[in-house]
Amino acid sequence: MARKIAFVGVGRMGANMARRLHELGHPVVAVADSHRPNAEALAEELGCAAPTSLSDLAGMADIIITVVTDDKAMRSIFKTRKDNLLSGKTRGKIFINCATVSPKTHVEVEKLCKARKAASIEACMASSIPQARSGSLYLMVGGEKRSYSRVQKLLSELSSTMTYIGPAGQAASVKALVNMVMNINTAALAEGLGLGDALGIDLDVLRQVFSQTGANSRVLETDGEDMQKRDHDCYFSAAHAAKDSSIAAALGRSARLKLPLNDATVGQYKKLVDLGLGDLDKSGIAELTFKGRSAK
Amino acid sequence: MARKIAFVGVGRMGANMARRLHELGHPVVAVADSHRPNAEALAEELGCAAPTSLSDLAGMADIIITVVTDDKAMRSIFKTRKDNLLSGKTRGKIFINCATVSPKTHVEVEKLCKARKAASIEACMASSIPQARSGSLYLMVGGEKRSYSRVQKLLSELSSTMTYIGPAGQAASVKALVNMVMNINTAALAEGLGLGDALGIDLDVLRQVFSQTGANSRVLETDGEDMQKRDHDCYFSAAHAAKDSSIAAALGRSARLKLPLNDATVGQYKKLVDLGLGDLDKSGIAELTFKGRSAK
Repeated sequence: MARKIAFVGVGRMGANMARRLHELGHPVVAVADSHRPNAEALAEELGCAAPTSLSDLAGMADIIITVVTDDKAMRSIFKTRKDNLLSGKTRGKIFINCATVSPKTHVEVEKLCKARKAASIEACMASSIPQARSGSLYLMVGGEKRSYSRVQKLLSELSSTMTYIGPAGQAASVKALVNMVMNINTAALAEGLGLGDALGIDLDVLRQVFSQTGANSRVLETDGEDMQKRDHDCYFSAAHAAKDSSIAAALGRSARLKLPLNDATVGQYKKLVDLGLGDLDKSGIAELTFKGRSAK
Repeated sequence: MARKIAFVGVGRMGANMARRLHELGHPVVAVADSHRPNAEALAEELGCAAPTSLSDLAGMADIIITVVTDDKAMRSIFKTRKDNLLSGKTRGKIFINCATVSPKTHVEVEKLCKARKAASIEACMASSIPQARSGSLYLMVGGEKRSYSRVQKLLSELSSTMTYIGPAGQAASVKALVNMVMNINTAALAEGLGLGDALGIDLDVLRQVFSQTGANSRVLETDGEDMQKRDHDCYFSAAHAAKDSSIAAALGRSARLKLPLNDATVGQYKKLVDLGLGDLDKSGIAELTFKGRSAK
């Protein structure tokens, strides 16, 4: 018999993951969201329950997938709310936590689940809305391997690439590292193109040369032309970049490492947020480096 | 009749470019070097002259290729030495300048050459010794287009990729930008791998994830494993990185741009040089970020 699935946090990411599993024939039995209309609309669409109680929701399912916004929301649904995911029947259930939260929150949640005879794994996502809908997420998994093996097949239906990283918290760490390096490379590209522009160099030629040399990077492909043309429609916001690079900075401090490049990048993205430009795509950092652009 | 070629600066790069052209049947008629034994050895190998006078050398050739070390050496061979490349017969000759020097030196040299009825172009190289020997350099060309067209075919025999950038100085600017972005990305990678290591993450897995996500870059391919394994055999030295990133910083200052990422990168590479580790490959920057490594 197919295992029953519930979702907590059905914003655009969570809702699209639920749609994907529903479409493949998995029984999605219940959904919840801190913004209740999200849950009600999706419940109607999928023909499932939208319980107001999290312990009721957990009681209805075998697998509970959580896609909440931050550390505070994670602690809320697993611990600080009186009615939470672990306050009812929990034996044998498995929680799959997809939110971008700090490594230590994943470790804490795993401990709480174990104490209640349940299991948990983290499945950090490095992709966006369309990939959630089409089942082509990039997933980084952390937790106990035996827990992973219980949901590996299910997760493979949500992803095109999935990598097991290590114990609880390590997938979140890797995600923070990916975004840290990505954001530094983005800031680097903005400086390169901004200075090239100031020197009167044809930026089409410059981007071509970058792509053929040691300056090449994934962000050159995804953000280079956008920086040149000031097309900052948001895929991954500057505010999000500031947050993720700050998470990496905190990890660095607790490991007692100096990370001057990341510090400079955090400074740039925070500056962008302070200027009220946090909703721009991360490519918007070029507004800080190109001469004569509005941001100063 | 084939045009006669002379070389000024026949260290490993210049000598290999001369060998390549000689092998293809071009008449390499004279070579010179500030370290005279270099010139004598190559002249014997190729069966050509090794005049002590630069004006004599220029008089013997139609095309003079210069591959000297820095701005000072460039000004010396074109201007400040009493006997220089422009002090004898110069009408109709063309100079191809391959050294990594500042954009303004290229502009100055072009002016000096024009005043003596000669032409000059810059051909900046983004490759190393083996590519010089095999004629597979990456060349960025700057100068007047009509001068470029006079030597385009010859340069194509030295290169696998050649891009015309713009007026004199712009190729040097682009090279500085390429190295600036490359060095920032290298410093970023070192921070990512160093922090990952401190967090106990398997670096083989981390590099794989980086390669599949927004953290991917050319330097991940060329330097990632070397950083992990502390294999810093030199292809492009840390001292060289410090110099090139400083050139970019100076360009930024004169354009009145703020480049905080490049500033941080200059700081890291200068620190490495100060620690006596300037001869390491640029990947050696990882010695500054990994916990427990010698450099502090």
